[in-house]
Amino acid sequence: MFAIAITLLVLTIPAPADYKHLGHELWNQWPAYAAYIVSFAIIGIMWLNHHTVFDHFERVDRNVVYLNLALLATVVLIPYPTQVFGEALQRGEGAKVAAVFYSIVMTLNAVAWAGLWIYGSSRRRLLGDAFPEDQRRTATVLFTFGTMIYLGTIVIALINAYACLAVHGALAVYYALDPLSRWVSRFTE
Amino acid sequence: MFAIAITLLVLTIPAPADYKHLGHELWNQWPAYAAYIVSFAIIGIMWLNHHTVFDHFERVDRNVVYLNLALLATVVLIPYPTQVFGEALQRGEGAKVAAVFYSIVMTLNAVAWAGLWIYGSSRRRLLGDAFPEDQRRTATVLFTFGTMIYLGTIVIALINAYACLAVHGALAVYYALDPLSRWVSRFTE
Amino acid sequence: MFAIAITLLVLTIPAPADYKHLGHELWNQWPAYAAYIVSFAIIGIMWLNHHTVFDHFERVDRNVVYLNLALLATVVLIPYPTQVFGEALQRGEGAKVAAVFYSIVMTLNAVAWAGLWIYGSSRRRLLGDAFPEDQRRTATVLFTFGTMIYLGTIVIALINAYACLAVHGALAVYYALDPLSRWVSRFTE
Amino acid sequence: MFAIAITLLVLTIPAPADYKHLGHELWNQWPAYAAYIVSFAIIGIMWLNHHTVFDHFERVDRNVVYLNLALLATVVLIPYPTQVFGEALQRGEGAKVAAVFYSIVMTLNAVAWAGLWIYGSSRRRLLGDAFPEDQRRTATVLFTFGTMIYLGTIVIALINAYACLAVHGALAVYYALDPLSRWVSRFTE
Repeated sequence: MFAIAITLLVLTIPAPADYKHLGHELWNQWPAYAAYIVSFAIIGIMWLNHHTVFDHFERVDRNVVYLNLALLATVVLIPYPTQVFGEALQRGEGAKVAAVFYSIVMTLNAVAWAGLWIYGSSRRRLLGDAFPEDQRRTATVLFTFGTMIYLGTIVIALINAYACLAVHGALAVYYALDPLSRWVSRFTE
Repeated sequence: MFAIAITLLVLTIPAPADYKHLGHELWNQWPAYAAYIVSFAIIGIMWLNHHTVFDHFERVDRNVVYLNLALLATVVLIPYPTQVFGEALQRGEGAKVAAVFYSIVMTLNAVAWAGLWIYGSSRRRLLGDAFPEDQRRTATVLFTFGTMIYLGTIVIALINAYACLAVHGALAVYYALDPLSRWVSRFTE
Repeated sequence: MFAIAITLLVLTIPAPADYKHLGHELWNQWPAYAAYIVSFAIIGIMWLNHHTVFDHFERVDRNVVYLNLALLATVVLIPYPTQVFGEALQRGEGAKVAAVFYSIVMTLNAVAWAGLWIYGSSRRRLLGDAFPEDQRRTATVLFTFGTMIYLGTIVIALINAYACLAVHGALAVYYALDPLSRWVSRFTE
Repeated sequence: MFAIAITLLVLTIPAPADYKHLGHELWNQWPAYAAYIVSFAIIGIMWLNHHTVFDHFERVDRNVVYLNLALLATVVLIPYPTQVFGEALQRGEGAKVAAVFYSIVMTLNAVAWAGLWIYGSSRRRLLGDAFPEDQRRTATVLFTFGTMIYLGTIVIALINAYACLAVHGALAVYYALDPLSRWVSRFTE
C-alpha cells in the first residue's frame, strides 16, 4: 500500500491546459513538483520505518492489525492534500488553508504512528527480547514528541504556506536520519 | 488487489474547484471523507477476512478460483459507488439513489462472499480437518445472514442516506469484532 | 501487473454528471458496467493462464522476458479501450468504431500470447520434461487459432457492437473452460 | 513500484471527446500511443536492470536505500511527462517544450541510476565477490556515459520532437541489448 500510494502521487500534478505556452505552464507548476517531492520523501521514509517497526514486533495481534489499518488510512490519503497543497500554491489562492489541511493529515498520521508504537511497545507487549529497554523508552518519547511537532506545523501553516511545506520536507529528512532509526538500522544489520 | 482497491479510494474525493474559499470547500466535503472512511474500513476488514477464509481452505480448485474472481470483481468496484455516494451527499442531490446504489454493490459483495464460503465449506469440500464442524455451521449461518442484512441496507437507503452510510460503517465494525472472526483469530494464533 | 490493470478498470466507469436524475444516469451506464465485467473476466482469466503457462516453463531466458513484456503492454492497455467502448455504447455514438478498437487491442493481445507460447514451446525450448508432447501440439493449435478468432471479432464489430462485446465475454468464458486449461489444471493438481 | 508506474501509463492516453468521429479521434491519438509504448519499454527494461543491479549487490545499507528511493521518485514521475509529450505531439503545440521536459526527467533518471551504481560499486562497496572487476569498470563507464547521452536528448528535443521520442525508444532497445546486460544475464544464468 505504501508502494501504491507513493506511485499515485504522480496523479497529483495537474495536466497543463495551455499548450501554446507549455514551458511557462510547466515552470509555474513548480509548487506541484515541490509538494510531490516532499510527499514522496514522507511516504518513502515512512515505508522504511514501517518495516523497521514491524521487524521489532515479534508477534501481531488483532488490535495491532486494526491500528495498522488506521495508520494506512492516513497514508493512503496523502495524495489528496498533496494535490490540494500544490494547486493552491500554484494558484496563489487558499495556500494557507491548504497548508493547514496538509498539516492536519500529517498530524493524524503522526497520531496513528504513536498509537501503533505505544500499543505494541508498552509493557513490551509485542517487542522481541532483543530490543533494548532504553531504546524502547527513547522511541516512545520520539513518537510522542513527533505528534507535537506535527501539531506545530499547523501553526506554521497559518503564518506561511511555503515555510510549512519546507518544514514538512525537513521533518522527512529528520526521520530519515534521526538517532532512533540510525540505531534501528545498526540493529538490523 | 485489496491493497490496490483500498488505495484507489483516495481518488474518490473530488478535487476542490473554488480555491478562494478553500476552507469552506474542504469542510463541505465531509461526506466524501465519511464515505472514504467507511469504504476503507469495509475493504480493509474484508481483506483480513479473506486471508482468514483462505487459511482455512486446505486446497483450492478451479471453481473456487472463479468464485474468488467474482468476489474480487465486487471489491474492485467499491471505489465507484463510494465516489457517487460521497458526491451525492455533498451536493444534497440524489443521495438516496446513491445510497441504494452503494447498498446494492455491498449486497452483491455479500452474495459473492456467501457463495465462496458455501462452495468451499459445504460437505467440508476444501476445509482442513482442524476446522471444527460446529464452527463451520456457525460461519455458514453468519455468511447467509449477512446477505440478508445487506439487502436490508437497501431499505434503509430509501429512508435516510446518512443512516445508511452509518449502518455500513457499523457493519464493518461488526465484521471486525464478530464471534466468528474472533474465533478464527484464536484458531490461527 | 494483472492485479493493477484489473483494479484500474473501475476508473473506466464515467462519473455521473446529473445528480438530479442520478438513478436514470446510473441505469443508462449499463454498457459501462457490461464492458467492466467483460474486461474484468478477460484480464482475470488471462492472469490465471499466465500463471499456468509460466508454471510449465522450466526456465526463462531474455527473449521470453521481452516477449512477456510485450504481452503485458497489451494487458495494461485494456482499461483504455474498455472505457472508450463503454462510453460509445452509452452515448450511442461511435459504437462500432469503439468495438473495432477494442477488438484490435484484444487481437494484439492474442498475437502476443501466441508469440510467447510458440517461442517457449517450439522444440520444447523452455518446457519441462513432464509436459506431454501431444498437449504441446494441442496448445500451439489453440493459441494460433485464438488469434484468428480475435481477428474475427473485428468483423463482428463492424456488424453489431453489442454482439461484439457479448462474443468477447463468451471467449473469456471459453478460455476459462477450454480443454487445454482443464488439462492444465489436472496437471498442476 | 515499477509495476504500478508502468500500469498507470494507460492513464496517460487522453479520453476521446468527439464520439461522432471516434475513428478519426482515435487515429489522431497515435502520438499518445507512441509515447505510451516508449515509456512502457523504458520502465519495463529499467525494471529488469534494477533486479540485475540489486542481484549483484551483496548487501544494502541506508545510503543505498535512500539513493534507491531517489531513483524510484524519478521512475514514478514518468507517466506525467509521457502524458504531456503525447498530448503536445497530438495538438501540434508545445511539442519541443514537451520533448525537452521528457528528456529532462529521463536525464534525472539516468543521474539517479549512475549515483546508485557508483555508490554501490566504487571500491566494491556492496558488490559480491563473484562480480568480475573488469565488468565493474565497464558498467561504471556505461552508467556515466548514459547520463551524457540523456543530456544529449535534450538537445535533440530542441531540434525535432518526433526524433527525440524515437531516440528515447532506441535507447530503451539499446539498454535491453547492451553488452553489460547481456553479460549480466549470462552471469545470472
